[in-house]
Amino acid sequence: MSKEITPRQQDYAQWYNDLIIKSGLADYSAVRGCMVIKPYGFALWERMRDELDRMFKDTGHQNAYFPLFIPKSFLSREAAHVEGFAKECAVVTHYRLKNDPGGAGVIVDPEAKLEEELIVRPTSETIIWNAYKDWIKSYRDLPLLINQWANVVRWEMRTRLFLRTSEFLWQEGHTAHATAPEAEAEARQMLAVYADFAERYMALPVVRGVKSPAERFAGAVDTYCIEALMQDGKALQAGTSHFLGQNFAKAFDVQFLTRENKLEHVWATSWGVSTRLVGALVMAHSDDEGLVLPPLLAPLQVVIVPIWKGAEQKALIDAKADEISAELKKAGIRVKYDDSDNVRPGWKFAEYEMKGVPVRIALGARDLEQNVAEVARRDTREKMSLSLDNLAARIKDLLDDIQQQIYRAASTYREEHITPADDFDTFRKILDEKGGFVSAHWDGTAETETRIKELTKATIRCIPLDNPPEEGKCILSGKPSRERVLFARAY
Amino acid sequence: MSKEITPRQQDYAQWYNDLIIKSGLADYSAVRGCMVIKPYGFALWERMRDELDRMFKDTGHQNAYFPLFIPKSFLSREAAHVEGFAKECAVVTHYRLKNDPGGAGVIVDPEAKLEEELIVRPTSETIIWNAYKDWIKSYRDLPLLINQWANVVRWEMRTRLFLRTSEFLWQEGHTAHATAPEAEAEARQMLAVYADFAERYMALPVVRGVKSPAERFAGAVDTYCIEALMQDGKALQAGTSHFLGQNFAKAFDVQFLTRENKLEHVWATSWGVSTRLVGALVMAHSDDEGLVLPPLLAPLQVVIVPIWKGAEQKALIDAKADEISAELKKAGIRVKYDDSDNVRPGWKFAEYEMKGVPVRIALGARDLEQNVAEVARRDTREKMSLSLDNLAARIKDLLDDIQQQIYRAASTYREEHITPADDFDTFRKILDEKGGFVSAHWDGTAETETRIKELTKATIRCIPLDNPPEEGKCILSGKPSRERVLFARAY
Repeated sequence: MSKEITPRQQDYAQWYNDLIIKSGLADYSAVRGCMVIKPYGFALWERMRDELDRMFKDTGHQNAYFPLFIPKSFLSREAAHVEGFAKECAVVTHYRLKNDPGGAGVIVDPEAKLEEELIVRPTSETIIWNAYKDWIKSYRDLPLLINQWANVVRWEMRTRLFLRTSEFLWQEGHTAHATAPEAEAEARQMLAVYADFAERYMALPVVRGVKSPAERFAGAVDTYCIEALMQDGKALQAGTSHFLGQNFAKAFDVQFLTRENKLEHVWATSWGVSTRLVGALVMAHSDDEGLVLPPLLAPLQVVIVPIWKGAEQKALIDAKADEISAELKKAGIRVKYDDSDNVRPGWKFAEYEMKGVPVRIALGARDLEQNVAEVARRDTREKMSLSLDNLAARIKDLLDDIQQQIYRAASTYREEHITPADDFDTFRKILDEKGGFVSAHWDGTAETETRIKELTKATIRCIPLDNPPEEGKCILSGKPSRERVLFARAY
Repeated sequence: MSKEITPRQQDYAQWYNDLIIKSGLADYSAVRGCMVIKPYGFALWERMRDELDRMFKDTGHQNAYFPLFIPKSFLSREAAHVEGFAKECAVVTHYRLKNDPGGAGVIVDPEAKLEEELIVRPTSETIIWNAYKDWIKSYRDLPLLINQWANVVRWEMRTRLFLRTSEFLWQEGHTAHATAPEAEAEARQMLAVYADFAERYMALPVVRGVKSPAERFAGAVDTYCIEALMQDGKALQAGTSHFLGQNFAKAFDVQFLTRENKLEHVWATSWGVSTRLVGALVMAHSDDEGLVLPPLLAPLQVVIVPIWKGAEQKALIDAKADEISAELKKAGIRVKYDDSDNVRPGWKFAEYEMKGVPVRIALGARDLEQNVAEVARRDTREKMSLSLDNLAARIKDLLDDIQQQIYRAASTYREEHITPADDFDTFRKILDEKGGFVSAHWDGTAETETRIKELTKATIRCIPLDNPPEEGKCILSGKPSRERVLFARAY
């Protein structure tokens, strides 16, 4: 593997693309806007998915599966929803191909036209709430706590590997509740689950907040979000959780008999994270040498590389490496011994740096004599000589330390990039020169929000949940404001 | 839950549908031919998927993910392949909806027509081999052992829950090898994995065989299969593994440099099982009272039902039930204590019989005094009184016994339903009166195979892998034959 990736300082976007391709996470595909998630990238996503799935189940959710296709008319039932999604839908119009009588190969059979076109799901609220109508009759059927792992399609014009693709993998939770406060609590609980996952597993500090009305999900009463900061100072929405009020229950007429025998519409939430998280993980921590992966998610945590001359040395090192591998595996560490003989150790070092393997153990004949190994950590690129006695415990501690150090580095960067601004010139200057979140007063109107976006390309990322009240004046309009909100340019 | 399901004897097809719906495995959806997999059905599929995934990884496979969409032209590259799939493809022709200027709601935007139509994948050989062209350069890149868990769409005209749906979930393995024998060995290895899974986990005896040319996968050189027998005497293909030769490598021009530095086309396999397995599981074991699930796959293995009068008794039973639950959970048993107070114990008994929970423990005040519980097994519906001492170990043994007993019952039925026939009248009589597999001589021609199908609706399910050679005469044509093959009517 060549190490030629564009440095971040030179072209951050190109660095990101180079890295995704050369580390083997994903590849472009023959279908516009769709990517192939390669085995290394999928292993990373699997680890994320499995942890999230466990967290969802621990909070009482069950998985189910709903159809890929949605009848076109369903989308129109909720007014804001159709407005938000109609313009980016893949539409199935026919169900058969046939040989062209003119001999041009296979064509779409005009006789196989669907009576009603089907949309490839961009999100599943409509098809799911149509099913919930049959499932929910009484308060005893509530709460209904369901999650789905699925592929969805949103026809994006500008795509980027993992961050924005026409098809992506995600999970979408869809819950139904007897009361508004219960649904609100669910939406907030799932935001907390996402934040916990981002910080503990992805080592990614996030701001928990609520979206401004203009940035809400199409059909939501409130959209909660977690916002992360990338190394180029741009923000990235890493997950959202929506309180949907009774919008979808009314659109699909889902009512239940209360304990008091009254018929009422159900209250709803939906919440999702996607393969976009893989992109966020890469952008937040990696460097010019390649990926930096938090040990808790790294498909491979430790690689052992032998350094030998001649078969005799090799046999000794092989034996020791097998011993160490077994010891590490027993301690629950994901380890690989790479004794391939077609490339040199230096090439392997570069390869595993590129792949972001947290710990590399180099094992040479002299090391063995001294009962030590050269251990290198990927995050800080420090090297140390460690005794082979009780190595598993030391490596376990090292992996813990790496996990924490990656989080600390991202937190420090983030803290340094939340900057207050009290006037528009300062606001713009911070965005242009420093990047990151700008904490500023806003008059609460969509007009001002739009105008700021036009002038600076910055959007309101969120109103933080733990925001202290503070009297002030909108940086653009000068009108009164009661709290600061976080602006940023964003992915 | 009402127990009104149609008895098998009265209408087997209706029994199956009633059972799927009333046990809460799945439901019809608003989209023709697509179903909703409900939480209980999905939990069952998840257990199957997780076991299979582990088996695939243990045999060296990695997961990846390829696009949902396939450019129409890709399908035509392999002649047999397009022939097999073109007639049942969902076709995406547009990527946007818009408001109808006439006010009729949302319509497909005619200006958003795709240059080349996209097929929703019916299977992924073409899009995957198009990617492999970039991935495979040298013998060092081989074997490439990849699996994908995905949804696929085949536009079926007659659909049945789980058994045949327009969209279904499955896994598809796609491997690339340097030589034909390696690829052949892979195809056979994966068949062995499927057979092992079916027999050990699903408690479903299967015949391992190879398909006749007419029944091969579109584009395969050889199709291996496992065939199971349902309780109505019809066969069901439960999994297939294909040796694809160099067909797809040639269609997508995937060549590699051999060790000897020669350029050669790659050899391929593909193999898959789907949510159809859930249908097979249900049909093979269940009875007129509901599902019978093998303990290794049952989402819930044990349910504890309290029988009480008054709060004092309830408190005592609650305490004991919590103790037993904890003990069983510690032993790795999936257990639920159902102390809901809105239905009577008898209703719960029927409910959990319907859901196929392998073991039911009824706990009453008198039982507690005697330190026993009434334990009922779902498969044979036997009841026994078990001491509460060391209950987890007894339940574990019982679950093992149930797993084996379900397998034995299905094996006995299967053995009784493999019948030899040496002339056509007997052949037809067995199919009509007894069902099951009929072992008969066939002259090896597609003409005879087609004619037998027209006359009897029976197809060649497979030529068993362990078939003994036996000279004989074709039951239809009287021409010479060297081995018997298995015929059956099939799902």
